[in-house]
Amino acid sequence: VLAFSSGNHAIAVAQAAAAFHVPATIVMPADAPAAKRETAAAAGAELVLYDRLTESREAIAAALAQERSLPVVPPFDDPFVMAGQGTAGLEIAADLGARGERIDLALICASGGGLASGVGVALKAFDPAIDVVVVEPDGHDDIARSLSSGAIVRNAPGVRSICDGLLVEQMGAHPFATLRALEARTVTVTDAEVRRAMRLAFETLKLVLEPSGAAALAAALAGKADVAGRNVVVLASGGNVDPAVFAAVLQH
Amino acid sequence: VLAFSSGNHAIAVAQAAAAFHVPATIVMPADAPAAKRETAAAAGAELVLYDRLTESREAIAAALAQERSLPVVPPFDDPFVMAGQGTAGLEIAADLGARGERIDLALICASGGGLASGVGVALKAFDPAIDVVVVEPDGHDDIARSLSSGAIVRNAPGVRSICDGLLVEQMGAHPFATLRALEARTVTVTDAEVRRAMRLAFETLKLVLEPSGAAALAAALAGKADVAGRNVVVLASGGNVDPAVFAAVLQH
Repeated sequence: VLAFSSGNHAIAVAQAAAAFHVPATIVMPADAPAAKRETAAAAGAELVLYDRLTESREAIAAALAQERSLPVVPPFDDPFVMAGQGTAGLEIAADLGARGERIDLALICASGGGLASGVGVALKAFDPAIDVVVVEPDGHDDIARSLSSGAIVRNAPGVRSICDGLLVEQMGAHPFATLRALEARTVTVTDAEVRRAMRLAFETLKLVLEPSGAAALAAALAGKADVAGRNVVVLASGGNVDPAVFAAVLQH
Repeated sequence: VLAFSSGNHAIAVAQAAAAFHVPATIVMPADAPAAKRETAAAAGAELVLYDRLTESREAIAAALAQERSLPVVPPFDDPFVMAGQGTAGLEIAADLGARGERIDLALICASGGGLASGVGVALKAFDPAIDVVVVEPDGHDDIARSLSSGAIVRNAPGVRSICDGLLVEQMGAHPFATLRALEARTVTVTDAEVRRAMRLAFETLKLVLEPSGAAALAAALAGKADVAGRNVVVLASGGNVDPAVFAAVLQH
């Protein structure tokens, strides 16, 4: 199989391929965190690196897929991938349902929108009254602008964010349709808010969150959503962060 | 209530007291991690600091308890405290039992021996064939020497270890009797082995472990116990570590 992703999807595909004894080729940005590159490589995947700012991963992946006759596992714009990512929402609903708890609001980080769509569908099936809120990095708010304008728009090229996993050019068509149907709302978070959330997760939850994985928590802490007195689910979706980056965040 | 402890026990007592609206006074070493002092203080406890190398916390606590008529919650040498700490073992047994899994070996960090005793009793009740192995820091192996000599012995004063939570002068009498009855074995770990375990927990488990909390994992990774091909429980018992210390471990 072949996958293209800035990180966690690549790792998931590499590890799933290894579990099924299938060779995996992963197209990854050369500036992806070493932690992500090494974890994918450790699962036995072949890594093909590219320059995020000058090359198109879709073009590289398409050429490789044709040349080697490899089936592609896209990172978000695919109903099966979205459903797979949505199993996180099924687990949340099962756990909270078993404890008799309801959910008022769910904060989910998003880039292409696959995870937010899948989890959103699962949670809305659990309780249609749940507010689904998509969290994007400042300057990468294409989902917000796409949903409000009614058509998919792009992010400006070259905008940086500490959230390396949330930097796709534009959201997917399937996630666009899904998040519209879910009436998802959107908020954005700054790098400083994300760092604060990473520190809180370290100090209080004892969890290692990568910047992208802390974006939803950042939104809750920074008052970007109405959390007071409500049962809030925060999806903390990744912990693949380089030690030096994490150390710098702790000492900030 | 009054408690004396180098950290996690103090935090537990402070938080339990707050939950029951009871004032708490905590005698803590002045060189305890700021993360531990601040967490105990944040729960509303009054902190009384002392010098670990020149003062006796037992004497300070006894004087304060008498002066203020406070019931003392000892850190380890008390059957109820040991039983409370042993609930971690009950949870482990319940979780693994529900999944139909057996345990061959349990690695548990120890200082006064209360946690190891309580967890050991719970696990042996689950399956008497489980090997209970107590993990101590190098140079603080009083439990090893006490169990092998048949009488409680002390640690040499002034020996340092990165495991700030595992540095009591000597084990408790109740834990001594309990660990003997359990036929517990003992191993020791070095600071370097503990740092390696903290990094692995960060990279792979995405968990923040304090040095003491990583000691049992360190023993497993360093080959101090026979883990190959066996179902091993590693107790990761604390994550109260100062950000600067954690950052230094990551960058080591």
